[in-house]
Amino acid sequence: MLLPTLPCLDPARKPGIQAHLDDLTKPQGSLGRLESLALQMAWISGENRPPDPEAFILTFAGDHGIARQGVSAFPPEVTPQMVANIAAGGAAISVLCRCNRIQHRVIDVGVAVPCPWPGVGQRNVMRGTGDPSAGPAMTRAQAEASLQAGLDEVAGLPELPFALLGLGEMGIANSAIAALLVSAFAGVDPRHAVGPGTGIKGQALQHKLEVIQAILDRQRLDPGDPVGVLAAVGGCEFGAMAGAMLAGAARGWAVIVDGYIAGAAALVALALEPRIRDFLVWSHRSAEPGARRLLEELEMEPVLDLSLRLGEGTGAALAVPILRSACAVAREMATFSGAGVSHADQH
Amino acid sequence: MLLPTLPCLDPARKPGIQAHLDDLTKPQGSLGRLESLALQMAWISGENRPPDPEAFILTFAGDHGIARQGVSAFPPEVTPQMVANIAAGGAAISVLCRCNRIQHRVIDVGVAVPCPWPGVGQRNVMRGTGDPSAGPAMTRAQAEASLQAGLDEVAGLPELPFALLGLGEMGIANSAIAALLVSAFAGVDPRHAVGPGTGIKGQALQHKLEVIQAILDRQRLDPGDPVGVLAAVGGCEFGAMAGAMLAGAARGWAVIVDGYIAGAAALVALALEPRIRDFLVWSHRSAEPGARRLLEELEMEPVLDLSLRLGEGTGAALAVPILRSACAVAREMATFSGAGVSHADQH
Repeated sequence: MLLPTLPCLDPARKPGIQAHLDDLTKPQGSLGRLESLALQMAWISGENRPPDPEAFILTFAGDHGIARQGVSAFPPEVTPQMVANIAAGGAAISVLCRCNRIQHRVIDVGVAVPCPWPGVGQRNVMRGTGDPSAGPAMTRAQAEASLQAGLDEVAGLPELPFALLGLGEMGIANSAIAALLVSAFAGVDPRHAVGPGTGIKGQALQHKLEVIQAILDRQRLDPGDPVGVLAAVGGCEFGAMAGAMLAGAARGWAVIVDGYIAGAAALVALALEPRIRDFLVWSHRSAEPGARRLLEELEMEPVLDLSLRLGEGTGAALAVPILRSACAVAREMATFSGAGVSHADQH
Repeated sequence: MLLPTLPCLDPARKPGIQAHLDDLTKPQGSLGRLESLALQMAWISGENRPPDPEAFILTFAGDHGIARQGVSAFPPEVTPQMVANIAAGGAAISVLCRCNRIQHRVIDVGVAVPCPWPGVGQRNVMRGTGDPSAGPAMTRAQAEASLQAGLDEVAGLPELPFALLGLGEMGIANSAIAALLVSAFAGVDPRHAVGPGTGIKGQALQHKLEVIQAILDRQRLDPGDPVGVLAAVGGCEFGAMAGAMLAGAARGWAVIVDGYIAGAAALVALALEPRIRDFLVWSHRSAEPGARRLLEELEMEPVLDLSLRLGEGTGAALAVPILRSACAVAREMATFSGAGVSHADQH
């Protein structure tokens, strides 16, 4: 399949942006992480004073054969129920997008049953993946189709030179799939990559780890073949998120990664095109234990640390006002000379 | 002086709010810190589904005689320059308030020179405090007048049953005063309470510590007499912030503490009325080293951790969308029964 080409962000532009930030009326560096985000937004947007960005969040939904192994606290029928709830505006992501001026859409890319409700995007690739304990979760063609679903969904968004694109998901048992992808791509030991997800613990958590370990022992996951890994373990929402990330970056947009599960999808995107790293913002450090390890492996600094472990794109939504604030600081603050404010070194 | 009476928040209401949050369509507790903030907002507002709160930030400005001791990286004339810049809309706080739908005002409560610019609140108590190295920074009457300035400023805000009120400051050398207040009220050793402020280091930082230590040795600061401590070390923006915090809580509003310096003002408010604690939200963990110690002493959990060290109310502004999001989640999310979503325990 043909992947989109990412624009080249020239590192030589960074000192000029930094000089602009240092000329704003504040002690240098005193806005901390907001300044490094402002630098990134200015770099991606190509403007020292980036515009106020429109924000989009896409929530891709899919089901997983691995759910039959009893690795989740919730039954699989919750996936379509929550798709309906999201489309009806009652889910956390629906509320947070309304509250934070974010355009939102939920898309069926792999739910086991039809989701024929108004507002649900229809890009179903397959009615739930196979169980990777028994064989590949998807064919290679299905894995590519899931990536294409993400590319196509972004193609339908308004063509803006700069915007924020957040990716999230809904899919019972997908924290188990995330653990497989994190183990395969980031080399994290499954004991650290597997966590409680929606809330299993004790014996059930131990069972989840054994299921994951058995799959890793059985399947030969080659991180050099990202589509092959995606096909082997699934699932559709991971492929769609990875495709959407690549499509967003190809447009020159900042791409906001939600939590642990979207983070696993980002590993697929990074394996397909390492240059996407410059466009990624890690919205938060998930409470899922593997998230800390994954962020360390990637040397990515999250924006928020609110012990979130819900998914759907909720962390990405909460990061949007921070990113808009970073853009606003770079765009609208006065300079020392312009405002007639004395410098520290004029003391 | 007469301090306002705070409404009584009944702890017996908390389990009912928690039950409401647990009935929303998400795994219990999966929104982490956002849920504990939602609980606090519901508790303060008196409604399980709190309204979308209007937000106000007040930036109180004052000058400090201690600046003559060379404890800041910036010269004192920056205080009125920045008041002008804030009022003109070019400062970080101006930008962040515009960006995040926050009503903002800067108020001269103790600047050394008149600030006669449009948009600047005029509540000057004195034209800069005295140097506490040489004697009390303010008279007791001036300390009370600074508290009153905060009370009066809040009295001029729209009378809403529930809102967010953030407090920030501008005042060259006021991180030195904050260190004195943190030492006096929270018992933090000055070696931990003194930090770089706007950016001093090395020998200058050591000198700042010696100045603070000498004042603490010389003045008898009795935390049981908060107005006396405020008078001894100053300054006007600390008193005004403390007064505004009490006035905001008296209205039944959530009060957002900005960074280290506003945190020191919160210690004055807490000493005057310990019950204000229930109304306080600590917006962020400042990069000023004493902030971590202060938060530990108070057992307060900040919302953000962005290495901010600017003041003005910037951290409070960045916390506003998170608090509005917490209110929105409690107010607008569907319940499991209402949305027909299966519970975890129905598995």
